[in-house]
Amino acid sequence: MLTFYHAPWSRSSGVFWLLEELGVDYRMEIVDIRAKGGVDEAYRSIQPNKKVPAIVHDGVTITERAAICIHLADAFPQAGLAPAIGDPRRGPYLTWMVYSDSVFDPAVAARAHGLTYGSNDYSFGLFEDLVGNLERHLSANAFAAGDAFTAADTQLASGIGFTMNIMKVLPDKPVFRDYLARATGRPAYGRVQEKDAELARLHPWEQNFG
Amino acid sequence: MLTFYHAPWSRSSGVFWLLEELGVDYRMEIVDIRAKGGVDEAYRSIQPNKKVPAIVHDGVTITERAAICIHLADAFPQAGLAPAIGDPRRGPYLTWMVYSDSVFDPAVAARAHGLTYGSNDYSFGLFEDLVGNLERHLSANAFAAGDAFTAADTQLASGIGFTMNIMKVLPDKPVFRDYLARATGRPAYGRVQEKDAELARLHPWEQNFG
Repeated sequence: MLTFYHAPWSRSSGVFWLLEELGVDYRMEIVDIRAKGGVDEAYRSIQPNKKVPAIVHDGVTITERAAICIHLADAFPQAGLAPAIGDPRRGPYLTWMVYSDSVFDPAVAARAHGLTYGSNDYSFGLFEDLVGNLERHLSANAFAAGDAFTAADTQLASGIGFTMNIMKVLPDKPVFRDYLARATGRPAYGRVQEKDAELARLHPWEQNFG
Repeated sequence: MLTFYHAPWSRSSGVFWLLEELGVDYRMEIVDIRAKGGVDEAYRSIQPNKKVPAIVHDGVTITERAAICIHLADAFPQAGLAPAIGDPRRGPYLTWMVYSDSVFDPAVAARAHGLTYGSNDYSFGLFEDLVGNLERHLSANAFAAGDAFTAADTQLASGIGFTMNIMKVLPDKPVFRDYLARATGRPAYGRVQEKDAELARLHPWEQNFG
Protein backbone atom coordinates (compact mmCIF):
# COMPACT_ATOMS: atom_id res chain seq x y z
CA MET A 1 0.00 0.00 0.00
CA LEU A 2 1.55 3.24 -1.24
CA THR A 3 0.12 6.76 -0.89
CA PHE A 4 1.76 9.67 -2.70
CA TYR A 5 1.19 13.26 -1.55
CA HIS A 6 1.48 15.51 -4.57
CA ALA A 7 0.83 18.99 -5.94
CA PRO A 8 0.93 19.38 -9.73
CA TRP A 9 3.94 21.22 -11.17
CA SER A 10 5.81 21.29 -7.88
CA ARG A 11 8.84 19.63 -6.30
CA SER A 12 6.79 16.43 -6.08
CA SER A 13 6.46 16.12 -9.87
CA GLY A 14 9.83 14.33 -10.09
CA VAL A 15 8.61 11.72 -7.61
CA PHE A 16 5.41 11.38 -9.66
CA TRP A 17 7.68 10.66 -12.65
CA LEU A 18 9.65 8.06 -10.70
CA LEU A 19 6.44 6.31 -9.59
CA GLU A 20 5.33 6.10 -13.23
CA GLU A 21 8.77 4.75 -14.23
CA LEU A 22 8.53 2.08 -11.53
CA GLY A 23 5.10 1.02 -12.78
CA VAL A 24 3.78 0.40 -9.27
CA ASP A 25 0.28 0.84 -7.89
CA TYR A 26 -0.22 3.89 -5.72
CA ARG A 27 -2.93 6.23 -4.50
CA MET A 28 -2.44 9.98 -5.04
CA GLU A 29 -3.48 12.58 -2.47
CA ILE A 30 -3.46 16.15 -3.76
CA VAL A 31 -2.08 18.71 -1.28
CA ASP A 32 -3.12 22.28 -2.01
CA ILE A 33 0.28 23.80 -1.21
CA ARG A 34 -0.77 27.13 -2.75
CA ALA A 35 -3.94 27.44 -0.65
CA LYS A 36 -4.63 30.89 0.75
CA GLY A 37 -4.14 30.57 4.50
CA GLY A 38 -1.73 27.68 4.03
CA VAL A 39 -2.08 23.92 3.99
CA ASP A 40 -4.36 22.33 6.60
CA GLU A 41 -2.42 21.83 9.83
CA ALA A 42 -3.44 18.15 9.92
CA TYR A 43 -1.04 17.49 7.06
CA ARG A 44 1.92 18.35 9.30
CA SER A 45 1.74 14.86 10.82
CA ILE A 46 2.72 13.59 7.34
CA GLN A 47 5.19 16.32 6.29
CA PRO A 48 6.72 18.57 8.97
CA ASN A 49 6.97 21.61 6.67
CA LYS A 50 3.54 20.90 5.13
CA LYS A 51 5.32 20.56 1.78
CA VAL A 52 5.22 17.94 -0.95
CA PRO A 53 6.30 15.29 -1.73
CA ALA A 54 5.67 12.72 0.96
CA ILE A 55 4.76 9.04 0.75
CA VAL A 56 3.31 6.52 3.13
CA HIS A 57 4.49 3.05 2.12
CA ASP A 58 3.24 0.02 4.04
CA GLY A 59 2.43 2.32 6.96
CA VAL A 60 5.81 4.08 7.01
CA THR A 61 5.93 7.82 6.29
CA ILE A 62 8.89 9.02 4.24
CA THR A 63 9.65 12.66 3.42
CA GLU A 64 12.49 14.51 1.64
CA ARG A 65 12.69 13.86 -2.10
CA ALA A 66 16.04 12.08 -2.09
CA ALA A 67 14.94 9.79 0.75
CA ILE A 68 11.67 8.98 -1.03
CA CYS A 69 13.40 8.26 -4.34
CA ILE A 70 16.23 6.20 -2.86
CA HIS A 71 13.65 4.20 -0.93
CA LEU A 72 11.31 3.63 -3.88
CA ALA A 73 13.99 2.71 -6.41
CA ASP A 74 15.50 0.20 -3.94
CA ALA A 75 12.07 -1.17 -2.95
CA PHE A 76 11.17 -1.91 -6.58
CA PRO A 77 14.47 -3.12 -8.05
CA GLN A 78 12.84 -4.82 -11.05
CA ALA A 79 12.66 -1.39 -12.73
CA GLY A 80 16.46 -1.23 -12.72
CA LEU A 81 16.57 2.45 -11.73
CA ALA A 82 18.90 2.12 -8.71
CA PRO A 83 22.47 0.78 -8.91
CA ALA A 84 22.63 -1.89 -6.21
CA ILE A 85 24.74 -1.59 -3.06
CA GLY A 86 28.27 -2.54 -4.13
CA ASP A 87 27.83 -1.29 -7.72
CA PRO A 88 30.40 1.48 -8.38
CA ARG A 89 27.61 3.62 -9.88
CA ARG A 90 25.87 3.67 -6.48
CA GLY A 91 28.17 6.46 -5.22
CA PRO A 92 27.41 9.01 -7.97
CA TYR A 93 23.77 7.90 -7.89
CA LEU A 94 23.46 8.77 -4.19
CA THR A 95 25.54 11.93 -4.61
CA TRP A 96 23.31 13.37 -7.35
CA MET A 97 20.13 12.29 -5.64
CA VAL A 98 21.06 14.17 -2.45
CA TYR A 99 22.63 17.09 -4.36
CA SER A 100 19.27 17.86 -5.99
CA ASP A 101 17.84 18.53 -2.52
CA SER A 102 20.85 19.84 -0.61
CA VAL A 103 22.44 22.09 -3.26
CA PHE A 104 20.37 22.49 -6.43
CA ASP A 105 17.04 23.59 -4.97
CA PRO A 106 18.27 26.00 -2.29
CA ALA A 107 20.98 27.53 -4.52
CA VAL A 108 18.45 28.18 -7.31
CA ALA A 109 15.90 29.58 -4.85
CA ALA A 110 18.56 31.86 -3.32
CA ARG A 111 19.37 33.18 -6.80
CA ALA A 112 15.67 33.61 -7.61
CA HIS A 113 15.23 35.67 -4.42
CA GLY A 114 18.33 37.78 -5.13
CA LEU A 115 20.09 36.58 -1.98
CA THR A 116 23.76 37.58 -1.81
CA TYR A 117 26.08 35.52 0.38
CA GLY A 118 29.60 34.14 0.65
CA SER A 119 30.66 30.65 -0.37
CA ASN A 120 31.00 29.58 3.29
CA ASP A 121 27.71 31.10 4.49
CA TYR A 122 25.42 28.26 3.41
CA SER A 123 26.00 24.53 3.02
CA PHE A 124 24.50 24.75 -0.49
CA GLY A 125 27.26 27.05 -1.74
CA LEU A 126 27.16 29.51 -4.61
CA PHE A 127 24.81 29.46 -7.61
CA GLU A 128 27.83 29.86 -9.93
CA ASP A 129 29.40 26.71 -8.48
CA LEU A 130 26.13 24.81 -9.04
CA VAL A 131 25.97 25.86 -12.70
CA GLY A 132 29.65 25.00 -13.23
CA ASN A 133 29.23 21.59 -11.65
CA LEU A 134 26.15 20.77 -13.71
CA GLU A 135 27.92 21.84 -16.91
CA ARG A 136 31.03 19.79 -16.18
CA HIS A 137 29.12 16.69 -15.10
CA LEU A 138 26.59 16.68 -17.94
CA SER A 139 29.28 17.36 -20.56
CA ALA A 140 31.16 14.26 -19.40
CA ASN A 141 28.22 11.98 -18.53
CA ALA A 142 25.02 11.12 -20.34
CA PHE A 143 23.09 10.87 -17.07
CA ALA A 144 23.44 11.73 -13.38
CA ALA A 145 25.03 8.42 -12.39
CA GLY A 146 26.93 7.83 -15.67
CA ASP A 147 25.88 6.06 -18.85
CA ALA A 148 22.37 4.92 -17.89
CA PHE A 149 19.17 6.62 -16.79
CA THR A 150 18.46 6.10 -13.07
CA ALA A 151 16.02 7.41 -10.49
CA ALA A 152 18.49 10.27 -9.85
CA ASP A 153 17.62 11.63 -13.30
CA THR A 154 13.96 11.96 -12.39
CA GLN A 155 15.09 14.52 -9.80
CA LEU A 156 17.92 16.20 -11.70
CA ALA A 157 16.04 16.52 -15.01
CA SER A 158 12.90 17.74 -13.24
CA GLY A 159 15.00 20.37 -11.47
CA ILE A 160 16.84 21.51 -14.59
CA GLY A 161 13.67 21.56 -16.70
CA PHE A 162 11.64 23.55 -14.18
CA THR A 163 14.34 26.05 -13.21
CA MET A 164 15.57 26.64 -16.79
CA ASN A 165 12.31 26.54 -18.76
CA ILE A 166 9.68 27.77 -16.29
CA MET A 167 11.50 29.77 -13.58
CA LYS A 168 14.16 30.91 -16.07
CA VAL A 169 16.76 31.10 -13.29
CA LEU A 170 19.12 28.38 -14.47
CA PRO A 171 20.82 29.66 -17.64
CA ASP A 172 19.61 28.18 -20.92
CA LYS A 173 22.61 26.19 -22.21
CA PRO A 174 22.95 23.52 -24.91
CA VAL A 175 24.45 21.09 -22.39
CA PHE A 176 21.28 21.32 -20.28
CA ARG A 177 18.94 21.10 -23.31
CA ASP A 178 20.81 18.03 -24.57
CA TYR A 179 20.54 16.36 -21.17
CA LEU A 180 16.80 17.10 -20.99
CA ALA A 181 16.37 15.60 -24.45
CA ARG A 182 18.15 12.42 -23.31
CA ALA A 183 16.38 12.16 -19.94
CA THR A 184 12.82 13.23 -20.66
CA GLY A 185 12.07 11.43 -23.93
CA ARG A 186 10.37 8.63 -22.05
CA PRO A 187 6.72 7.52 -21.91
CA ALA A 188 6.51 7.89 -18.12
CA TYR A 189 7.68 11.52 -18.34
CA GLY A 190 5.09 12.27 -21.01
CA ARG A 191 2.31 10.73 -18.90
CA VAL A 192 3.28 12.83 -15.90
CA GLN A 193 3.35 16.07 -17.91
CA GLU A 194 -0.15 15.32 -19.21
CA LYS A 195 -1.49 14.34 -15.81
CA ASP A 196 0.06 17.36 -14.07
CA ALA A 197 -1.52 19.67 -16.66
CA GLU A 198 -4.87 17.97 -16.12
CA LEU A 199 -4.58 18.16 -12.32
CA ALA A 200 -3.62 21.84 -12.52
CA ARG A 201 -6.72 22.57 -14.64
CA LEU A 202 -8.88 21.03 -11.93
CA HIS A 203 -7.49 23.34 -9.26
CA PRO A 204 -7.72 27.10 -8.79
CA TRP A 205 -3.95 27.56 -8.41
CA GLU A 206 -3.55 26.72 -12.08
CA GLN A 207 -3.27 30.47 -12.74
CA ASN A 208 -0.03 30.66 -10.73
CA PHE A 209 1.76 28.75 -13.49
CA GLY A 210 1.42 30.77 -16.66
CA MET B 1 40.86 2.02 -0.25
CA LEU B 2 39.02 4.91 1.41
CA THR B 3 40.08 8.57 1.55
CA PHE B 4 38.17 11.02 3.74
CA TYR B 5 38.38 14.79 3.09
CA HIS B 6 37.90 16.56 6.40
CA ALA B 7 38.21 19.86 8.23
CA PRO B 8 38.11 19.73 12.04
CA TRP B 9 34.94 21.05 13.68
CA SER B 10 33.05 21.37 10.46
CA ARG B 11 30.17 19.65 8.62
CA SER B 12 32.53 16.72 7.99
CA SER B 13 32.91 15.92 11.70
CA GLY B 14 29.75 13.81 11.66
CA VAL B 15 31.18 11.69 8.83
CA PHE B 16 34.42 11.39 10.85
CA TRP B 17 32.26 10.06 13.70
CA LEU B 18 30.54 7.56 11.39
CA LEU B 19 33.88 6.31 10.06
CA GLU B 20 35.03 5.70 13.64
CA GLU B 21 31.76 3.91 14.43
CA LEU B 22 32.25 1.65 11.40
CA GLY B 23 35.77 0.76 12.50
CA VAL B 24 37.11 0.79 8.95
CA ASP B 25 40.56 1.76 7.66
CA TYR B 26 40.73 5.12 5.95
CA ARG B 27 43.20 7.84 5.08
CA MET B 28 42.33 11.41 6.13
CA GLU B 29 43.10 14.44 3.95
CA ILE B 30 42.74 17.78 5.71
CA VAL B 31 41.10 20.50 3.61
CA ASP B 32 41.81 24.04 4.83
CA ILE B 33 38.27 25.29 4.22
CA ARG B 34 39.00 28.47 6.20
CA ALA B 35 42.13 29.38 4.19
CA LYS B 36 42.46 33.04 3.30
CA GLY B 37 41.97 33.20 -0.47
CA GLY B 38 39.87 30.06 -0.42
CA VAL B 39 40.57 26.37 -0.89
CA ASP B 40 42.97 25.38 -3.68
CA GLU B 41 41.06 25.15 -6.96
CA ALA B 42 42.44 21.64 -7.56
CA TYR B 43 40.12 20.36 -4.82
CA ARG B 44 37.07 21.23 -6.95
CA SER B 45 37.59 18.01 -8.93
CA ILE B 46 36.76 16.18 -5.68
CA GLN B 47 34.06 18.47 -4.27
CA PRO B 48 32.28 20.93 -6.62
CA ASN B 49 31.75 23.57 -3.92
CA LYS B 50 35.25 22.99 -2.47
CA LYS B 51 33.53 22.02 0.79
CA VAL B 52 33.90 19.08 3.14
CA PRO B 53 33.11 16.24 3.53
CA ALA B 54 33.97 14.15 0.50
CA ILE B 55 35.22 10.59 0.21
CA VAL B 56 36.91 8.57 -2.49
CA HIS B 57 36.07 4.90 -1.98
CA ASP B 58 37.61 2.29 -4.29
CA GLY B 59 38.17 5.03 -6.86
CA VAL B 60 34.63 6.46 -6.68
CA THR B 61 34.15 10.04 -5.45
CA ILE B 62 31.10 10.64 -3.27
CA THR B 63 29.99 14.04 -1.95
CA GLU B 64 26.99 15.35 0.05
CA ARG B 65 26.87 14.17 3.64
CA ALA B 66 23.71 12.07 3.37
CA ALA B 67 25.02 10.33 0.25
CA ILE B 68 28.36 9.60 1.92
CA CYS B 69 26.74 8.27 5.09
CA ILE B 70 24.10 6.17 3.32
CA HIS B 71 26.86 4.71 1.15
CA LEU B 72 29.27 3.98 4.01
CA ALA B 73 26.72 2.45 6.38
CA ASP B 74 25.44 0.16 3.58
CA ALA B 75 28.97 -0.70 2.42
CA PHE B 76 29.97 -1.85 5.92
CA PRO B 77 26.82 -3.57 7.19
CA GLN B 78 28.63 -5.50 9.93
CA ALA B 79 28.49 -2.34 12.07
CA GLY B 80 24.69 -2.55 12.08
CA LEU B 81 24.21 1.21 11.59
CA ALA B 82 21.90 1.06 8.55
CA PRO B 83 18.49 -0.62 8.54
CA ALA B 84 18.58 -2.89 5.48
CA ILE B 85 16.43 -2.37 2.39
CA GLY B 86 13.01 -3.81 3.29
CA ASP B 87 13.35 -3.03 7.01
CA PRO B 88 10.51 -0.64 8.03
CA ARG B 89 13.09 1.53 9.83
CA ARG B 90 14.81 2.21 6.48
CA GLY B 91 12.23 4.92 5.62
CA PRO B 92 12.75 7.14 8.69
CA TYR B 93 16.48 6.41 8.48
CA LEU B 94 16.68 7.81 4.94
CA THR B 95 14.31 10.67 5.77
CA TRP B 96 16.40 11.91 8.71
CA MET B 97 19.67 11.41 6.88
CA VAL B 98 18.53 13.61 3.99
CA TYR B 99 16.69 16.06 6.27
CA SER B 100 19.98 16.92 8.01
CA ASP B 101 21.30 18.21 4.67
CA SER B 102 18.16 19.45 2.95
CA VAL B 103 16.39 21.16 5.86
CA PHE B 104 18.42 21.31 9.07
CA ASP B 105 21.62 22.93 7.80
CA PRO B 106 20.14 25.55 5.48
CA ALA B 107 17.31 26.49 7.89
CA VAL B 108 19.79 26.99 10.76
CA ALA B 109 22.17 28.97 8.53
CA ALA B 110 19.30 31.16 7.31
CA ARG B 111 18.38 31.90 10.92
CA ALA B 112 22.02 32.58 11.82
CA HIS B 113 22.25 35.09 8.95
CA GLY B 114 18.97 36.77 9.91
CA LEU B 115 17.30 35.85 6.62
CA THR B 116 13.54 36.49 6.56
CA TYR B 117 11.42 34.53 4.09
CA GLY B 118 8.05 32.86 3.61
CA SER B 119 7.34 29.18 4.14
CA ASN B 120 7.08 28.60 0.36
CA ASP B 121 10.20 30.58 -0.61
CA TYR B 122 12.75 27.86 0.09
CA SER B 123 12.56 24.08 -0.04
CA PHE B 124 14.05 23.95 3.48
CA GLY B 125 11.09 25.77 5.03
CA LEU B 126 10.95 27.80 8.21
CA PHE B 127 13.31 27.58 11.19
CA GLU B 128 10.29 27.36 13.52
CA ASP B 129 9.03 24.30 11.64
CA LEU B 130 12.47 22.69 11.95
CA VAL B 131 12.55 23.23 15.71
CA GLY B 132 9.00 21.94 16.10
CA ASN B 133 9.72 18.84 14.06
CA LEU B 134 12.90 18.04 16.02
CA GLU B 135 11.05 18.48 19.31
CA ARG B 136 8.14 16.26 18.29
CA HIS B 137 10.34 13.55 16.83
CA LEU B 138 12.88 13.40 19.64
CA SER B 139 10.16 13.44 22.29
CA ALA B 140 8.58 10.36 20.71
CA ASN B 141 11.73 8.51 19.57
CA ALA B 142 15.01 7.73 21.27
CA PHE B 143 16.92 8.12 18.01
CA ALA B 144 16.49 9.46 14.47
CA ALA B 145 15.21 6.17 13.03
CA GLY B 146 13.42 4.95 16.16
CA ASP B 147 14.65 2.86 19.07
CA ALA B 148 18.24 2.22 18.00
CA PHE B 149 21.26 4.37 17.18
CA THR B 150 21.98 4.44 13.42
CA ALA B 151 24.27 6.32 11.06
CA ALA B 152 21.53 8.98 10.80
CA ASP B 153 22.28 9.94 14.41
CA THR B 154 25.89 10.75 13.57
CA GLN B 155 24.49 13.52 11.37
CA LEU B 156 21.53 14.62 13.46
CA ALA B 157 23.38 14.68 16.78
CA SER B 158 26.37 16.44 15.22
CA GLY B 159 24.02 19.06 13.82
CA ILE B 160 22.09 19.56 17.06
CA GLY B 161 25.26 19.64 19.17
CA PHE B 162 27.06 22.15 16.97
CA THR B 163 24.13 24.49 16.34
CA MET B 164 22.86 24.46 19.95
CA ASN B 165 26.12 24.41 21.91
CA ILE B 166 28.60 26.21 19.64
CA MET B 167 26.59 28.40 17.23
CA LYS B 168 23.83 28.92 19.82
CA VAL B 169 21.21 29.22 17.07
CA LEU B 170 19.14 26.14 17.86
CA PRO B 171 17.34 26.78 21.17
CA ASP B 172 18.71 25.00 24.22
CA LYS B 173 15.96 22.55 25.20
CA PRO B 174 15.88 19.52 27.51
CA VAL B 175 14.61 17.31 24.67
CA PHE B 176 17.73 18.15 22.62
CA ARG B 177 20.08 17.75 25.61
CA ASP B 178 18.55 14.36 26.42
CA TYR B 179 18.95 13.21 22.83
CA LEU B 180 22.59 14.34 22.76
CA ALA B 181 23.20 12.43 26.00
CA ARG B 182 21.74 9.28 24.41
CA ALA B 183 23.49 9.66 21.06
CA THR B 184 26.94 10.97 21.95
CA GLY B 185 27.89 8.83 24.96
CA ARG B 186 29.85 6.49 22.71
CA PRO B 187 33.60 5.77 22.44
CA ALA B 188 33.75 6.68 18.74
CA TYR B 189 32.22 10.10 19.46
CA GLY B 190 34.75 10.75 22.20
CA ARG B 191 37.66 9.79 19.92
CA VAL B 192 36.45 12.18 17.23
CA GLN B 193 36.08 15.07 19.68
CA GLU B 194 39.65 14.51 20.88
CA LYS B 195 41.05 14.16 17.38
CA ASP B 196 39.20 17.22 16.07
CA ALA B 197 40.56 19.29 18.96
CA GLU B 198 44.07 18.03 18.22
CA LEU B 199 43.72 18.71 14.47
CA ALA B 200 42.41 22.19 15.18
CA ARG B 201 45.45 22.93 17.40
CA LEU B 202 47.75 21.97 14.50
CA HIS B 203 46.10 24.47 12.16
CA PRO B 204 45.98 28.28 12.26
CA TRP B 205 42.21 28.43 11.90
CA GLU B 206 41.92 27.08 15.44
CA GLN B 207 41.30 30.69 16.51
CA ASN B 208 38.05 30.84 14.55
CA PHE B 209 36.46 28.41 17.03
CA GLY B 210 36.57 30.01 20.46
